[in-house]
Amino acid sequence: MNNYSKAGPGPSLRAGLIGYTGYSGAELAGLLGRHADVELVLLNHRKAAGRAPDAAPVACGPHGARTIPHIPWEPRAIQSNKLDVVFTATPPEISQELVPEILAQGARAIDLSGAFRLPTAAEYQRWYGAAHAHPELLEQAVYGLPELHRDKIRTASLVANPGCYPTAAICALWPLLKNDLVDRTAGVICDAKSGVSGAGKNPSPKTHFVQVSENFSAYAILKHRHVPEVLLNAGVDESDFAFTAHLLPTQRGILATHYLRLKQPMSLDAVYDVYRAAYAEARFIRLYPAGSTPQLATVNGTNYCDIHCTLAPDGRRLVVISCIDNLVKGAAGQAVQNMNVMFGLDEAAGLLP
Amino acid sequence: MNNYSKAGPGPSLRAGLIGYTGYSGAELAGLLGRHADVELVLLNHRKAAGRAPDAAPVACGPHGARTIPHIPWEPRAIQSNKLDVVFTATPPEISQELVPEILAQGARAIDLSGAFRLPTAAEYQRWYGAAHAHPELLEQAVYGLPELHRDKIRTASLVANPGCYPTAAICALWPLLKNDLVDRTAGVICDAKSGVSGAGKNPSPKTHFVQVSENFSAYAILKHRHVPEVLLNAGVDESDFAFTAHLLPTQRGILATHYLRLKQPMSLDAVYDVYRAAYAEARFIRLYPAGSTPQLATVNGTNYCDIHCTLAPDGRRLVVISCIDNLVKGAAGQAVQNMNVMFGLDEAAGLLP
Amino acid sequence: MNNYSKAGPGPSLRAGLIGYTGYSGAELAGLLGRHADVELVLLNHRKAAGRAPDAAPVACGPHGARTIPHIPWEPRAIQSNKLDVVFTATPPEISQELVPEILAQGARAIDLSGAFRLPTAAEYQRWYGAAHAHPELLEQAVYGLPELHRDKIRTASLVANPGCYPTAAICALWPLLKNDLVDRTAGVICDAKSGVSGAGKNPSPKTHFVQVSENFSAYAILKHRHVPEVLLNAGVDESDFAFTAHLLPTQRGILATHYLRLKQPMSLDAVYDVYRAAYAEARFIRLYPAGSTPQLATVNGTNYCDIHCTLAPDGRRLVVISCIDNLVKGAAGQAVQNMNVMFGLDEAAGLLP
Amino acid sequence: MNNYSKAGPGPSLRAGLIGYTGYSGAELAGLLGRHADVELVLLNHRKAAGRAPDAAPVACGPHGARTIPHIPWEPRAIQSNKLDVVFTATPPEISQELVPEILAQGARAIDLSGAFRLPTAAEYQRWYGAAHAHPELLEQAVYGLPELHRDKIRTASLVANPGCYPTAAICALWPLLKNDLVDRTAGVICDAKSGVSGAGKNPSPKTHFVQVSENFSAYAILKHRHVPEVLLNAGVDESDFAFTAHLLPTQRGILATHYLRLKQPMSLDAVYDVYRAAYAEARFIRLYPAGSTPQLATVNGTNYCDIHCTLAPDGRRLVVISCIDNLVKGAAGQAVQNMNVMFGLDEAAGLLP
Repeated sequence: MNNYSKAGPGPSLRAGLIGYTGYSGAELAGLLGRHADVELVLLNHRKAAGRAPDAAPVACGPHGARTIPHIPWEPRAIQSNKLDVVFTATPPEISQELVPEILAQGARAIDLSGAFRLPTAAEYQRWYGAAHAHPELLEQAVYGLPELHRDKIRTASLVANPGCYPTAAICALWPLLKNDLVDRTAGVICDAKSGVSGAGKNPSPKTHFVQVSENFSAYAILKHRHVPEVLLNAGVDESDFAFTAHLLPTQRGILATHYLRLKQPMSLDAVYDVYRAAYAEARFIRLYPAGSTPQLATVNGTNYCDIHCTLAPDGRRLVVISCIDNLVKGAAGQAVQNMNVMFGLDEAAGLLP
Repeated sequence: MNNYSKAGPGPSLRAGLIGYTGYSGAELAGLLGRHADVELVLLNHRKAAGRAPDAAPVACGPHGARTIPHIPWEPRAIQSNKLDVVFTATPPEISQELVPEILAQGARAIDLSGAFRLPTAAEYQRWYGAAHAHPELLEQAVYGLPELHRDKIRTASLVANPGCYPTAAICALWPLLKNDLVDRTAGVICDAKSGVSGAGKNPSPKTHFVQVSENFSAYAILKHRHVPEVLLNAGVDESDFAFTAHLLPTQRGILATHYLRLKQPMSLDAVYDVYRAAYAEARFIRLYPAGSTPQLATVNGTNYCDIHCTLAPDGRRLVVISCIDNLVKGAAGQAVQNMNVMFGLDEAAGLLP
Repeated sequence: MNNYSKAGPGPSLRAGLIGYTGYSGAELAGLLGRHADVELVLLNHRKAAGRAPDAAPVACGPHGARTIPHIPWEPRAIQSNKLDVVFTATPPEISQELVPEILAQGARAIDLSGAFRLPTAAEYQRWYGAAHAHPELLEQAVYGLPELHRDKIRTASLVANPGCYPTAAICALWPLLKNDLVDRTAGVICDAKSGVSGAGKNPSPKTHFVQVSENFSAYAILKHRHVPEVLLNAGVDESDFAFTAHLLPTQRGILATHYLRLKQPMSLDAVYDVYRAAYAEARFIRLYPAGSTPQLATVNGTNYCDIHCTLAPDGRRLVVISCIDNLVKGAAGQAVQNMNVMFGLDEAAGLLP
Repeated sequence: MNNYSKAGPGPSLRAGLIGYTGYSGAELAGLLGRHADVELVLLNHRKAAGRAPDAAPVACGPHGARTIPHIPWEPRAIQSNKLDVVFTATPPEISQELVPEILAQGARAIDLSGAFRLPTAAEYQRWYGAAHAHPELLEQAVYGLPELHRDKIRTASLVANPGCYPTAAICALWPLLKNDLVDRTAGVICDAKSGVSGAGKNPSPKTHFVQVSENFSAYAILKHRHVPEVLLNAGVDESDFAFTAHLLPTQRGILATHYLRLKQPMSLDAVYDVYRAAYAEARFIRLYPAGSTPQLATVNGTNYCDIHCTLAPDGRRLVVISCIDNLVKGAAGQAVQNMNVMFGLDEAAGLLP
């Protein structure tokens, strides 16, 4: 089952999506709906349904857009629709219900929630404040950051798609940390800023336009539930790491500014070389040339993670900036990238023109 | 009771405010709290309470800001606090409960809802879709647009503070209509655009930042409940009037563009003269010089209504633009202006520096 | 030369683009760069060059994005690069220089400026305030709104791509006017609102973020240079038409609200039927169902023009709303659509997934 | 000259302002124009003139706004207008010309540029890339942060009004650093985010609405010219300090997030007590209660600097957030506060209601 090979032209991978009304799910439905190798089925799950969208306008003349079927979710839908893979863009407690059913029916699963990102039930309990319903799956799940774990993802049955903040932070920090170039005793700092879609589609006083526009604020200072993903995957101890989230008055995009100190003085070129080596196979990591300015506008709408380094004259104090679109590389695009890796497709299929 | 006279320096008018958590109420609390002639009491009404605001920062050193008392609303609070006037910034059905109690206790009332703006219970039923609880007060209520009804407001016990859209539309249209200069058969059009605070503080999918930012939409096309106020006060028949509301991605401000045809050709100067004559006593109507561009930025945060006219070469087709801050001239500022008129204060007290 | 037929798979139409640093030109470079049937060459013209963009980030791993050649513009470049078509996204006075050179070299031309949209040099002089350098081309040019002029566009050597406001206004008004359903004596009104990219990329006090954000203003009231395109193509006299432009605090998008009166009472269904008939072949006109709300978010990033009608109870006063992305259907997308029609490609190639 | 005493009611301090078309200067003109103790004269300086503003609307009825005289700047204007103090909101090279003339005429000067903030010509040369025209004044100038230097400001002839970023950073860092509570070897980090008005009123590609909206970017990483002010006044070595500036898509406001490590574990209460003690006289420093969220909306339009601390469980890693309005506490409001201190007025006069 796991060795998928595409035979001939036309869509040949069959994918299901549960949870397509939230921001990540809607973005994923769009990406999969345009993916040349994928035939998509939307699986309507009661608890993940959300409100009905407003009536949409209808084209007058002939229009060739693919029609995407909507059917009710039930485990048998996997076999009756011959689904190879099912995406769950649902809250973590619902994902915990659905994923075992998906796997039991013989499909592979890519979960966009935080349900399967941590390695133990104890960690999950600590950071999510609830017991995990299926701790046995935590061991089996592979953390879906292809830039770090491509080989494991290839054969995984269950991929835990990373959080948006962790994607930005890990991509920025991992190359230097894994090469043991960082003086951890000086602290590793991630000051992250995210657009409002990161807070979800549920209306609340905090996401009201009048509250957000012309405003900017910090939240979850030193205690965001995305922190343990960073610790585990970038390789840094909790006692050495500081994380602050901020809410930008933008629809999307994360820019994270990292501060760290190198063990030994390096040149900026040498620092960039570390990234080049670590990401030699990474098609979605881009390095910003020195002197230019990283910005959300360059990554929004893409699956790229852009990285930029600035070194102090002492050759040790380093500022690393990473930018992603929180709904693409931070969610839906990365999920597609994971699917591509899992099924032997071109890793950039459906993500680059 | 109605002949208030200020004796000596310092605040001497005692005002109560019910409903201070919505946008208009909060704006009004700010204006009244800084008004040199007013001592303000906030009256906490259960149904109008809203959620508690976030904890606010506290100044370190000595700070001289007036402390505004919060007390529970009950009718007896009017006499025990010697209130001269009570503002109600509450939904229309609550205003209908509260205003009779306020008047019965001997205070004057200024209501910011739509509860008392229409002259008959039948009209109210038609536009608000509900029966009016106190039709007998509709006759007594004075429509609180001082530029039109200053004399009646002076002695009114109950003032119905106008809607935000009607304030912009009536100020733009009334001078030409009352002088019978408009060819009504060609239609009188008001194309109005408002910032999001006009939609209220309640979070909803329509006010979510991600929905509003970089977006613009029309709503309530030809059927806004503010229409009858315009018809009655500007003096135009429903069959000759067209109104469309639009939602701007801004926090505040209304700009309304009006299209009409004059009966006889006029010069632009003559048109402006009509406005100058109609508003000779109006301190908050400003006329834009020809050639310049009206904009929200010039009125936001003020009680002004700015007006600008453009005449086609035929001297008959006319575009009249009016701009207000929907929360000031369209709500709280106008309520203060009404209070100033009712109690013989300087009409601009607390509204101009 | 004009009967282009695509032989076999892969890009086979060769296109040049002069002027790719402005908003429309950059959008067009993006659309053509991803168009499966087009091989694009960017032609660097000194006067249209603009400032060099900031240095862009570079992908670490292998990346398959097509490289688009940049070469200096000179007339001989057309033959040496075997260009079938050249787009000019340049100011009108530069387009007047370039287009005759392009045509003389045997390529077809699509001009995005206003240089060739009006039928006579006198009209051009009146609205653009300058003499036209090549009046002989005005007769030859075809107005590139495929929904109206598809047949003429097919064989045209020179297509004048419409303005953004006219695209929105003509699509909304033309079906009713050409069927003589409108009482023109009551006036035809277009109240149009556009995002800031419509004002061009040149920095000015009027496009500064601090000036635009949280602001909204009217401009070019009754005298925009886009007006004559509407008059000519929708079929309405200047004396019956009123147009006002407004600047929205958004990056893109136009929403235009039209007010008109029907000669005879109609039902809303009958009105929509007029549009359905007029646009039976139009793949980019979408009709909004009654009751729903048209908005920029639904068209931005697409080549659609969305249309929505509201009828007063008298069956005669009508509000027609149209929405487009000013850079796509209002500029670059429409230019691609014109190219598709001119060269016998699928009209939606490169514009729909 | 320096011992100003206010005699009787009404404005009695006479102030001049050179440079009133930029954002800071216009904000200052507004604050001084409403200040009950100040009579303001605008001094028109050729090089600082900027473009003429658009024509403004004119009130119809009587209006009592104070008329502020505009006269040409020349040194003799100081004596002929009996000016006690002159504000210069001009570029640093122009301030260096003007301030000696102002002082020579016997007025006191408050300069809003960076011309007099650094102690030596060498420092000025290093950070501003130009020779200082009047190094002798650098010694005489007092750094105008009243929370730190109130006593020196009282008697100063020349006050150098602080930069916006330094105001936010120094207010956040100084109490802990002066009490020697910080482990400087771990680094002191200031990650600062500012609204667009901080970039000045001059239109540029970087301040174009289309570039800024829905975007966010970092700039001046580790090398902003505001850094030396922070080092000198907060008391930290350049080798221990890291500063990054970011551009927010807002009109105003700075939020700066600081990361530092305490020498010894402390409780959060003890940390806040350090701030309370340091700012016991500071009327414009507000401390946010734990658990709440600092935000721009709470300080914009005010002269407050809001501060919020979060401590890690180890009692040593500390995040300090400070918020100011860059045009008020970061420029014009602080200039008024300095004037109040210099002339023995209530420190909050004209700044609190």
